[in-house]
Amino acid sequence: MTADFDRSGEFEVIKNIFSPLSMSAPGAFGLTDDAAVMSVEAGFELVITKDAMVAGVHFLEDDKPENIARKLLRTNLSDIAAMGAKPLSYLLATAWTDDCNQDWIARFANGLVLDQKKYGVSLLGGDTVKTPGPLTLSLTLIGKVPSGQSLRRNAAKVGDLLCVSGTIGDAALGLMVARQELKSISEINAKFLLNRYLLPDPRVSLGPALVGLANGCLDISDGLLADIGHIVAQSKTGAIIHRSEIPLSKAAFAAVDMRPELWEQILGGGDDYELAFTLPRKNLTETLKKAESLGVKVTVIGEITHEPEMKILDDDGIELQVNSTGWAHF
Amino acid sequence: MTADFDRSGEFEVIKNIFSPLSMSAPGAFGLTDDAAVMSVEAGFELVITKDAMVAGVHFLEDDKPENIARKLLRTNLSDIAAMGAKPLSYLLATAWTDDCNQDWIARFANGLVLDQKKYGVSLLGGDTVKTPGPLTLSLTLIGKVPSGQSLRRNAAKVGDLLCVSGTIGDAALGLMVARQELKSISEINAKFLLNRYLLPDPRVSLGPALVGLANGCLDISDGLLADIGHIVAQSKTGAIIHRSEIPLSKAAFAAVDMRPELWEQILGGGDDYELAFTLPRKNLTETLKKAESLGVKVTVIGEITHEPEMKILDDDGIELQVNSTGWAHF
Repeated sequence: MTADFDRSGEFEVIKNIFSPLSMSAPGAFGLTDDAAVMSVEAGFELVITKDAMVAGVHFLEDDKPENIARKLLRTNLSDIAAMGAKPLSYLLATAWTDDCNQDWIARFANGLVLDQKKYGVSLLGGDTVKTPGPLTLSLTLIGKVPSGQSLRRNAAKVGDLLCVSGTIGDAALGLMVARQELKSISEINAKFLLNRYLLPDPRVSLGPALVGLANGCLDISDGLLADIGHIVAQSKTGAIIHRSEIPLSKAAFAAVDMRPELWEQILGGGDDYELAFTLPRKNLTETLKKAESLGVKVTVIGEITHEPEMKILDDDGIELQVNSTGWAHF
Repeated sequence: MTADFDRSGEFEVIKNIFSPLSMSAPGAFGLTDDAAVMSVEAGFELVITKDAMVAGVHFLEDDKPENIARKLLRTNLSDIAAMGAKPLSYLLATAWTDDCNQDWIARFANGLVLDQKKYGVSLLGGDTVKTPGPLTLSLTLIGKVPSGQSLRRNAAKVGDLLCVSGTIGDAALGLMVARQELKSISEINAKFLLNRYLLPDPRVSLGPALVGLANGCLDISDGLLADIGHIVAQSKTGAIIHRSEIPLSKAAFAAVDMRPELWEQILGGGDDYELAFTLPRKNLTETLKKAESLGVKVTVIGEITHEPEMKILDDDGIELQVNSTGWAHF
């Protein structure tokens, strides 16, 4: 790990705050070297993803530093899970502003400590620099998958069942809560939705469990329809989605029951970090059993079709209008 | 690779500009998936580094986009070389400003194309987002090294010869040229020094060649004295450096001959991206022969000592004053 601002101060930040996060990764060398070393078990491949986040664009400047760190790690964990891989370790690049004092940075690192324990990953290396602003972060996460077994977007097959994990649309509604655009719901529902937006729960156990069972797979970050659009475009198939089958949380159900136009957020909003995947029909029972044993709900919401278009049917089986970017308007 | 701004436009940028850069890395999947897949040959480990660069901090806003891209890639290549590893592929996160239009981004990508060919590396994945500014970049580079053979900073042994590649101090003087602080030198020398600052030439062939020969190794990015300070601190040794042995380019020699106080820049300035390494005396002949066959100059500038301190001797063998951060004042 290298540092370049206020050099002696920053070497202290790396040594005192970040180096302890690397202790369970021997190849991190305590962040003292130019690069980290990582070995790979025979029979496995590495799966690697890298996300960037900018204050004011991907999170709010006054979000808790612990949560900013955890969301950054979790969005990358979701990408790794979507490939069917198990996460191992990560590298972190931070461009701090003057507002990020040592206390702020220590809280940020503490968020990483919490999630390192929760998800069993370790800091491996990175870089820390200064920026006149805004705070900008980038994380590279590395996982492993049995060689040749990674899940892909382009592998959906005609006739596959289309499934999602968890509940859909909570994060988009949570963002509305954060922006005070969703005031007419109960406090407990508002809190639930906001938390789903601030701290997604990446499906790190379900992803690897789908290897050998699912065909196409990705995580829902752009929005349910846009992301299923990616699967069908890459797989050169189509899809039919039954809106009534889309799993909603109680909070999302209450919101959309009151304001049906919120379906647009539920279908089009992003950041749920649930998995959307396609299954040969014969694998459904085993998949549901595995998911249940992992405590993750899996719901069939439609199927993969030959005709290269995406249809979404309302509760009466009537086709809803969806525009070319995957957004449905009501 | 994912995109999140002006989504359709940005998906186009990924598809048209960046996807072609990933064509020789099959596990990049044309940048269509959530993550990339990479296999590792038996007997090898991966070496991974990640750097961040901010406009106005690490490069000038009006530097050529081609050169910004190449410097970003090359500084990471240097880290991989310093570990004795051979570079393979990289992930790129970009936070573009509004000033980075498609033409600018295409020129940036073209810089990467040039250096992908020169250094034999491939784009594997990444992320592209928008920022209100400044332009912020992060690159993660992955290389390979025979298992257990990576070069480390902490492996210098008492009695080792202390060596450097190439010439020292050119980049620091080149930065002075860029800042118009070094006007009294010839145009040809100014151009040479500026180019050494703008486009370092990472020692990608020498690094792997030192595996099995060198003990301690790093790349000179913080400055010669600071970086040798890292080696001796990590290795719990000391060092004696003979200033008269430090290899200078003709341009740097001309500058320091005219203004001896420029030794401070040469010894203390960073960004040379040469390698500094320590060698058992018995390995010197073989190392020099290998380096010569690779077209890289290697010079012995001192030795590793038992006493845990760093001494630098002037042309008359008199010890120069060096402060605690590794900066020498004259």
